[in-house]
Amino acid sequence: MSDTKISRISPLDPTATEPFYRQIYDRFRSAIASGSLKPGDRIPSARALTQELGLSRGTIDAAYSLLAAEGYIEARGQAGTIVTPGLKPKAPVATPPPRKKDTALPPSFRPDSILPFQMGLPALDMFPRKIWARLGARFARVMQPADMAQPPVFGLPELRAQIATYLRVSRGVDCSPAQVFVTSGYRHTLGSIARALLKEGDRVWLENPGYPPTRDLLGQLGIVAAAVPVDQEGIVVAEGRRLASRARAAVVTPAHQSPLGVSLSLTRRLDLLDWAAETGAWIVEDDYDGEYRYVSRPLPALKSLDREGRVLYAGTFSKLLFPSIRLAYLVVPEAQVERFEQVFQTFAGDTPWLTQAIVTAFVAEGHFARHIQKMRKCYAERRQATVAGLTDALGDRVRIDAQPGGMHLILRFEGRWSQASLIARMRDEGLYGEAMADWMVEGEGTPAVLVSFTNIGSRAAAGELGARLAKLF
Amino acid sequence: MSDTKISRISPLDPTATEPFYRQIYDRFRSAIASGSLKPGDRIPSARALTQELGLSRGTIDAAYSLLAAEGYIEARGQAGTIVTPGLKPKAPVATPPPRKKDTALPPSFRPDSILPFQMGLPALDMFPRKIWARLGARFARVMQPADMAQPPVFGLPELRAQIATYLRVSRGVDCSPAQVFVTSGYRHTLGSIARALLKEGDRVWLENPGYPPTRDLLGQLGIVAAAVPVDQEGIVVAEGRRLASRARAAVVTPAHQSPLGVSLSLTRRLDLLDWAAETGAWIVEDDYDGEYRYVSRPLPALKSLDREGRVLYAGTFSKLLFPSIRLAYLVVPEAQVERFEQVFQTFAGDTPWLTQAIVTAFVAEGHFARHIQKMRKCYAERRQATVAGLTDALGDRVRIDAQPGGMHLILRFEGRWSQASLIARMRDEGLYGEAMADWMVEGEGTPAVLVSFTNIGSRAAAGELGARLAKLF
Repeated sequence: MSDTKISRISPLDPTATEPFYRQIYDRFRSAIASGSLKPGDRIPSARALTQELGLSRGTIDAAYSLLAAEGYIEARGQAGTIVTPGLKPKAPVATPPPRKKDTALPPSFRPDSILPFQMGLPALDMFPRKIWARLGARFARVMQPADMAQPPVFGLPELRAQIATYLRVSRGVDCSPAQVFVTSGYRHTLGSIARALLKEGDRVWLENPGYPPTRDLLGQLGIVAAAVPVDQEGIVVAEGRRLASRARAAVVTPAHQSPLGVSLSLTRRLDLLDWAAETGAWIVEDDYDGEYRYVSRPLPALKSLDREGRVLYAGTFSKLLFPSIRLAYLVVPEAQVERFEQVFQTFAGDTPWLTQAIVTAFVAEGHFARHIQKMRKCYAERRQATVAGLTDALGDRVRIDAQPGGMHLILRFEGRWSQASLIARMRDEGLYGEAMADWMVEGEGTPAVLVSFTNIGSRAAAGELGARLAKLF
Repeated sequence: MSDTKISRISPLDPTATEPFYRQIYDRFRSAIASGSLKPGDRIPSARALTQELGLSRGTIDAAYSLLAAEGYIEARGQAGTIVTPGLKPKAPVATPPPRKKDTALPPSFRPDSILPFQMGLPALDMFPRKIWARLGARFARVMQPADMAQPPVFGLPELRAQIATYLRVSRGVDCSPAQVFVTSGYRHTLGSIARALLKEGDRVWLENPGYPPTRDLLGQLGIVAAAVPVDQEGIVVAEGRRLASRARAAVVTPAHQSPLGVSLSLTRRLDLLDWAAETGAWIVEDDYDGEYRYVSRPLPALKSLDREGRVLYAGTFSKLLFPSIRLAYLVVPEAQVERFEQVFQTFAGDTPWLTQAIVTAFVAEGHFARHIQKMRKCYAERRQATVAGLTDALGDRVRIDAQPGGMHLILRFEGRWSQASLIARMRDEGLYGEAMADWMVEGEGTPAVLVSFTNIGSRAAAGELGARLAKLF
């Protein structure tokens, strides 16, 4: 079926972390670089390769598109596809771009493939994919001309109403749909808040340690961080007052502090709200995982106590559904609705109708509430299993923080060890982990490694991962 | 099937521009406000109303969600849904927010419903919706765990490769996939360019008249516009040099100037590139409709002449497929790839995997190229039919600019007339139109009305619209 043997490219590895299309692309590049495929040689048609490798046509097409786009191969119509005549083997153009060791960005924000302990992911195996596929197919089919025009820039009214209802019932937040703005992710939310309410040179309290994208994004906008420490009751508001009493805003994670996992105490919540009311500062509540509390019922959001209209509430579907959905939202105080409408009219409206339509139905038909219930139970089990499995393998060498909620664990090792070097060895071993040092806004912090448990299915699986970890000491 | 008669709400209007869910919502609010539905009254179940009105369940759910979210109605489980007890008729919370007469934003950017002459829309009836639905269903079904993680922040590699190939073949732009960044729309593209290369207080040449979102977005970022006039050869580069020779950038629409429709001449293209090379300025090429040229083959993009790496190329799928897709892209000079990678790593990665997967296949399988071919022919016909129909109805009262391409017409009326008042009367008549005055960066410009022809199917249909227009004088 083709005059070029596939055997000229080395076999694919189904266990590799690289996707197949990338493996095929790499194999062809290597074959060309090594001379086993020469300029002018005919390569298999996409159809033939699809059949021979037993992969999907889309996979082969993706690989061939990359090769063609970089000039390695050329389609010649009836004559088939050939290695570009006159091609000189050379260092390839970087595509996809190489992942740089850029210390400014912790590795979780440059995802490449899914490793054990990968942070920032829900339990992907538990997602109701069939229901999702059914809704996706339904809305792709029923899309009407009016749905094809630019979607309302504040979000579909139906979705805004569903979110408002959900927040009232589940997070104690009383808001009207007009206060809800649909965004394409937490960074879009935070960027919109900065555009509406902050300016270059403003000081903002950040939790230390804290979620790195918050620090990085505000830093890029020229906003100056005041690193406020976190203790067992959450952000130390008194220390914030001491460091920067006139700051314009504070970004906090009250449900389960990111990454320490502690909850902001009621005293601190009231103190924080008082500070904001006194000074006219804004509080950004990043409620990324408020639902996932395992020791008791979820706490109401800080926003539920906001009598003065100082709290901007940031919620997201990325952690509750899946990250590639790119759907989040922002609830603004009633008095700020008009200001945010202006900002969204100028900059935003970036969420596809299809995504919004699917999620609206997913929530309205009750799948969302059921999924959260199921995941709360699943995570409680997986967390316990992971702690047990890691303790089985590592014994006294590790202490694991007790946290009331969240989607990751904090591991602290005994004796002398370096976070950076352990993380590097974990990567070499094919394990994910993040250094607490990378989550510090300022200072070094107490050494620890952050790992997620959400995709670890059993104590035995955690034990095996623990054994691989133990080898690294 | 319900103890509440639907007749308590007035009948729906299938010809209204408001969607049904909004009509139902409004009817219930009116019924409550007028007292024909009283607090505690039971209202039909969503299922019953779905059957009685013959609408989809989603429509009824959307209306009820809005009403519930605003506190008008309450679900009482087995007891059904009732008008909230104790509810006092009052001015409703604004949801969806009222469309304000905000002169800063031309009406096209606050779309509510599709009117005849609506700008910014492709021919929605011609879109291959069945193919789209098939691809949507396919990718919703085959989504794998790796596809559910945060998508690569620069865009899916397969899509970047497809875009690079398309640009080489169709627009004469030679770029590698690493230079292509996927965005969620032109505003996201322009905002990313501003973040990467501009700062507050920088001066930028804008075409005058020009696309209002460019002016509004850069204005919000504190960038100062230099309004450069446009003549029959496009932007007057010599005038730009005279007004602001040290500007940091120029934003241009070389294929068909937006809105005048003229093409930037070769002399001007070379002069503009020379200016950028001499001064180190950036050129942003907004190639929103380069494909749609009716007098000859499409011109290559300005970017194809860019030897010095000064041109940032902005392309979009919104005008070629449909706006609610929220998918666009940016091509940056090779030397700027690293800078843009930084910006996208901090701010972006906001396009859902599903959208990118569908579009990749749509392009790879040849549907995209076929659709563009078909639309080029369709638009040439519709434009001609619309010009003919309007001329039939309006005769000498209107002059219509001859333009080589684009997706709208420019109407100039004889005698004394006011743009603002004509546009207002057109709206009252249910017709869309935009005043040239709203497209001016500076000054008043020559009075004209912009209308789109893309959704006008025949000379007869255009004639009827022309007759409705004629009544307004």
